[in-house]
Amino acid sequence: MTTTAPSYPVVEGEYHLGTVHLQRGGSIPNAKIAYKTFGTLNADKSNVILYPTWYSGFHVNNEWLIGEGMALDPNVYFIIIISAFGNGQSSSPSNTPEPYNAARFPNVTLYDNVVNQHRVVTEHFGIEKLKLVVGWSMGAQQTYQWAALYPDMVERAAPFCGSAKTAPHNFVFLEGVKAALTADAAWNNGWYTAPPTKGLRSLARVYAVWGFSQPFYRQELWRKLGFNSLEDFLVGFWEGFFLQRDANNLLAMLWTWQNADISANEHFNGDIEKALKAIKCPTVILPAKIDLYFPPEDNEWESQHIPNNKFVVIPGVWGHFAGGGLWDEDTKFIDNELKELLSK
Amino acid sequence: MTTTAPSYPVVEGEYHLGTVHLQRGGSIPNAKIAYKTFGTLNADKSNVILYPTWYSGFHVNNEWLIGEGMALDPNVYFIIIISAFGNGQSSSPSNTPEPYNAARFPNVTLYDNVVNQHRVVTEHFGIEKLKLVVGWSMGAQQTYQWAALYPDMVERAAPFCGSAKTAPHNFVFLEGVKAALTADAAWNNGWYTAPPTKGLRSLARVYAVWGFSQPFYRQELWRKLGFNSLEDFLVGFWEGFFLQRDANNLLAMLWTWQNADISANEHFNGDIEKALKAIKCPTVILPAKIDLYFPPEDNEWESQHIPNNKFVVIPGVWGHFAGGGLWDEDTKFIDNELKELLSK
Repeated sequence: MTTTAPSYPVVEGEYHLGTVHLQRGGSIPNAKIAYKTFGTLNADKSNVILYPTWYSGFHVNNEWLIGEGMALDPNVYFIIIISAFGNGQSSSPSNTPEPYNAARFPNVTLYDNVVNQHRVVTEHFGIEKLKLVVGWSMGAQQTYQWAALYPDMVERAAPFCGSAKTAPHNFVFLEGVKAALTADAAWNNGWYTAPPTKGLRSLARVYAVWGFSQPFYRQELWRKLGFNSLEDFLVGFWEGFFLQRDANNLLAMLWTWQNADISANEHFNGDIEKALKAIKCPTVILPAKIDLYFPPEDNEWESQHIPNNKFVVIPGVWGHFAGGGLWDEDTKFIDNELKELLSK
Repeated sequence: MTTTAPSYPVVEGEYHLGTVHLQRGGSIPNAKIAYKTFGTLNADKSNVILYPTWYSGFHVNNEWLIGEGMALDPNVYFIIIISAFGNGQSSSPSNTPEPYNAARFPNVTLYDNVVNQHRVVTEHFGIEKLKLVVGWSMGAQQTYQWAALYPDMVERAAPFCGSAKTAPHNFVFLEGVKAALTADAAWNNGWYTAPPTKGLRSLARVYAVWGFSQPFYRQELWRKLGFNSLEDFLVGFWEGFFLQRDANNLLAMLWTWQNADISANEHFNGDIEKALKAIKCPTVILPAKIDLYFPPEDNEWESQHIPNNKFVVIPGVWGHFAGGGLWDEDTKFIDNELKELLSK
């Protein structure tokens, strides 16, 4: 087998923001935002797609939606995968020096993420227009926030399997995720010296049934992912994923997610309808049919308040992970919607 | 306020079964099944309703469906609430003497529960016919098992918010519940000396979002239960409930639930369709509209194989707890279906 290098530039980088003062108080000294770019920025900087990461996702976890011939084609666009705070690549509990490390990493809001990403895009890259902002899950939440805060900059938005404001049941789901991790004494209120693996495995098992749908499990579709038993899937896919993550990072992002609300800032003062109305650009909202924590109903409500949107449900039974890049049919569905949106 | 004593007899009791040999190996010496009866057994013993308990439910937790003027009217019927093994009232890890106590309590199947309940009903009470078997959740699973194993004895069956075989997604949900509890080092593989309260609270938080539905939380219907904040509901309702339960009992019943399958015995040899076809009596299957772990789809499939059934979905947004007796509208809906079934 030979690996062919891509015919377009792929660059990983970080932008240092200095001290970032946070919306809910506190600050991150020498804060940084990590990114990875695909393709070439054109002369008038008009070919930019911004693609924020999801809960605990690294850059690499976003890459399935990028490729030649796809909507996110690096031969055409300059695509920036940008890391949310807490993901372990941008400033996070795991990589921030004392005294703001580990359990002392401050609370970061959705707003904090987006206004600082805006600095990376404008100060670092000198970009004034975004052809598209697109993202999955917490990446979708950042997409909504971008479109609402910067309506003159964001030309198109495509949030998939996410919401503009975390719904209460989603909040409670995350309470369970948090409780499962923090029940492990090894977590030690965040001051662990070795990873609290029991808690990470526990979190993974709680998460497992939420990520996919009832029919996904009924039809044993984990077999399509190469696992030969349900237990194998729980260990290999779920525990394997979360054991690679830092517990404090997971808790930091969990707080961001639980409190995500695009209207929770001075621009909208908690008026979610006002914030949704501020999204002027053509928007495609793509929930998955049986997403258990970001169910289509929540997006349907949102779509009634966003002026220029297309609301379309990703069919099938992969649940939230319809947006995870695991299943070709779902990926093609999303890709087609993005192609249509970009052609406008 | 005055409390009026009921005009019918209410009796709590236990039946001692001697050594019970279990389907998957092992035994419980001096096993017992606890029960509570309401009303009077008539002369020809033809007015009996059997009402098994649910996951971690005590007798008292079943009583909301019993009352004068209701379908389960103790002036008309002799109603037996019968405790499943592991609930803390029948033989359980918490009340079984050494050496079979705590972590050494053997695995008990759905089948073990029902064949031993059958002994209570026939040997102890001398009853040969059951006018109705009815139950919620794991109580529904016992109801299915009763009707399939004893078709000449069970005259009507009404399982609500349960299934004849635990579905895979339900199994995975329970993996999360188990992981959240056992992540607490105080659990100590079952050999705790004081309750592992951190694990019990963690389990409660994982369970919380499953028990009700997305719209229940969206509409803040916990306010109807007297709580004034979401956190208050999580602590007061959920943690309050599970802190009163024994961790090993919860794990014992969880195993029973995960492995529940009315066909997993010598009568049906794992042929679930055959087991469902064996249910001859008039049956009302009552799933709740947005039950996240016993979704109506699973029951709909079952209903295609049960000869004489009515499949009707409990409307509304209370999810699994539509069958928990918390909301009058749902209780009336179930009660009306039971009245109709009993009138046949």
